[in-house]
Amino acid sequence: MTHPRFTPLADSLPATVPFVGPETQERARGAAFAARLGANESLFGPSPLAVAAMAQAAADVWMYGDPENHDLRAALAAHHGAGPENIVVAEGIDGLLGYLVRLLVAPGDAVVTSDGAYPTLNFHVAGFGGHLHKVPYRGDHEDPDALLDRAAAVDAKLIYLANPDNPMGSHHPGSTIAAIIERLPPGTLLALDEAYVELAPEGTAPVIAADDPRVIRLRTFSKAYGMAGARVGYAMGAAPLIAAFNKVRNHFGVGRIVQAGALAALADTAHLAWVQAEVAASRAALGRIAVQNGLTPLPSATNFVTMDCGADGAFARRVLEALIARGIFVRMPFVAPQNRCIRVSTGPAAEMRAFADALPQALAAARG
Amino acid sequence: MTHPRFTPLADSLPATVPFVGPETQERARGAAFAARLGANESLFGPSPLAVAAMAQAAADVWMYGDPENHDLRAALAAHHGAGPENIVVAEGIDGLLGYLVRLLVAPGDAVVTSDGAYPTLNFHVAGFGGHLHKVPYRGDHEDPDALLDRAAAVDAKLIYLANPDNPMGSHHPGSTIAAIIERLPPGTLLALDEAYVELAPEGTAPVIAADDPRVIRLRTFSKAYGMAGARVGYAMGAAPLIAAFNKVRNHFGVGRIVQAGALAALADTAHLAWVQAEVAASRAALGRIAVQNGLTPLPSATNFVTMDCGADGAFARRVLEALIARGIFVRMPFVAPQNRCIRVSTGPAAEMRAFADALPQALAAARG
Repeated sequence: MTHPRFTPLADSLPATVPFVGPETQERARGAAFAARLGANESLFGPSPLAVAAMAQAAADVWMYGDPENHDLRAALAAHHGAGPENIVVAEGIDGLLGYLVRLLVAPGDAVVTSDGAYPTLNFHVAGFGGHLHKVPYRGDHEDPDALLDRAAAVDAKLIYLANPDNPMGSHHPGSTIAAIIERLPPGTLLALDEAYVELAPEGTAPVIAADDPRVIRLRTFSKAYGMAGARVGYAMGAAPLIAAFNKVRNHFGVGRIVQAGALAALADTAHLAWVQAEVAASRAALGRIAVQNGLTPLPSATNFVTMDCGADGAFARRVLEALIARGIFVRMPFVAPQNRCIRVSTGPAAEMRAFADALPQALAAARG
Repeated sequence: MTHPRFTPLADSLPATVPFVGPETQERARGAAFAARLGANESLFGPSPLAVAAMAQAAADVWMYGDPENHDLRAALAAHHGAGPENIVVAEGIDGLLGYLVRLLVAPGDAVVTSDGAYPTLNFHVAGFGGHLHKVPYRGDHEDPDALLDRAAAVDAKLIYLANPDNPMGSHHPGSTIAAIIERLPPGTLLALDEAYVELAPEGTAPVIAADDPRVIRLRTFSKAYGMAGARVGYAMGAAPLIAAFNKVRNHFGVGRIVQAGALAALADTAHLAWVQAEVAASRAALGRIAVQNGLTPLPSATNFVTMDCGADGAFARRVLEALIARGIFVRMPFVAPQNRCIRVSTGPAAEMRAFADALPQALAAARG
């Protein structure tokens, strides 16, 4: 008998991973990237107050972090006008999605998402044996009607919707999200991924009662707050659903340094406002660079700009590879027709210049 | 229909959590602990080089950590004479145990452990629907024969064994562990939790070939390395088992600051040697305090000393509560007859004095 004996489900899972990190690509090319514009990290950085709080907490790292994340949850509750019982903190939205899928999705249960949306959701659904149903984007937006119709048809446990959307940068107004919630099939939970919502126009985040049992909202400190490397996100929802995470989560999974950093970041509203302004300016700059090079920048409610390269996925792939060869880390959508695009993070002037310098060469190489 | 629809397994899980943190107790009593001696954290602290590395990495926290943990795995591989393909890094041994159980244990599958051993293993086995079989300790040691016999009888997927043991502080020599591996039933994997092994006598860690498919070793930076609040551990095993973790793990779950800290901690062998010496001295000090108060200190291969209070679990519970009331955070074993004891972490002189001052009062209160 072989060691070990995996479960049939584990045996059936592919060895693929959701994302290849830029460090892996750097090791493969033998050189660091000149501009790291592929993972929608915040090149504008975290709050200096958060950095200071984390540096200070590092000296106390011999102590486990509070497994209840009490202070951070209390601060988030105050920030959102909810109760601490409506908030669970975990190892990023990735971690939260894993726990959520585990709580809801037994083998064969249906989940509905958009074809080309966040692949880590798909990784978790497959990982727990769920049946993933994908509906196409419509006009580079996730399609509420298609998601709802499919959820009703397949009796979905869960609909995944990111608003704003990654990888297209599009968004629906909060009123549309509110209408989706009203139209959910009985017993279908909306997992509303709001990773980028702090960077979206006013009104993108719908008003949702803290105890609404039909929706769980996912937020992160990885994007606008510039703390991707800390790995901390949170979910907001009705207390019974939030409490259920305690049945399965890694209770000590969010460490002491991370909790201190997130608490300080949340309090630094001035830094967030500065990032929002810088991101808006950089989106405009990326738009100009795209247009100057004959590409079409899509409207963005995020910290990245998705650019239509004007041809098919093979062409966009060549542009992407030519950029990477020139030290510019970018990514692209996975699925047609969105994969006619490349996706470029906003950032300070130096990185924008590096991208502006490399793009004409990359386009020439892709066409040549 | 109610929202959301949990899986039958999730619905069946209790709301209990593996551990209540000291912060929760501090909030309940309205005061901080004077001495934090209950979680086997390293009061001797992390390497100053690790603290410096984490403080420096905090400024770069806008970048996701390398999802392959490449540099840390390479350093660990060199440290252990293994290959990077034999090592997976994750969110502490807690996180690793969760992934391991998920990979191996389908609903109804058998896992064998000791009654009163690490409860987070039990949490994960229940969480994936496994059937947990517990065998008694023998003479305050985990009992290899009983574990092996039960595993054979129930066709266990997994045996959990901590060496050194928590909560008793006992250990088996590496030769005993090697003999256990030779006697494993076909298809039973040994999960060897070596969280405390850096603090144990020479020879406690058995020599195991890196590609031995019968065992997976679990290690952590939380104990001897003093980085509990960073949440980072690693597992070593045969490449196919290690690779399987990629099917289910949170790929970005170990952040940038944590990876930098662990890398620096591993390299600071002088700090580790100092901690080992301090822990040994503090174990002796705790032993003297116990004896002076009529308690029996158990031999310890860890950074804590378990003290036999000489009566039943109810008495030890009263001692524990009286210590907590006096600002001394300690814990105790969960299960009889081990629960005749309290468990006290080693630490610097100030905390030892605080414990020595409080213990006579606590014993008087418990007897009164």
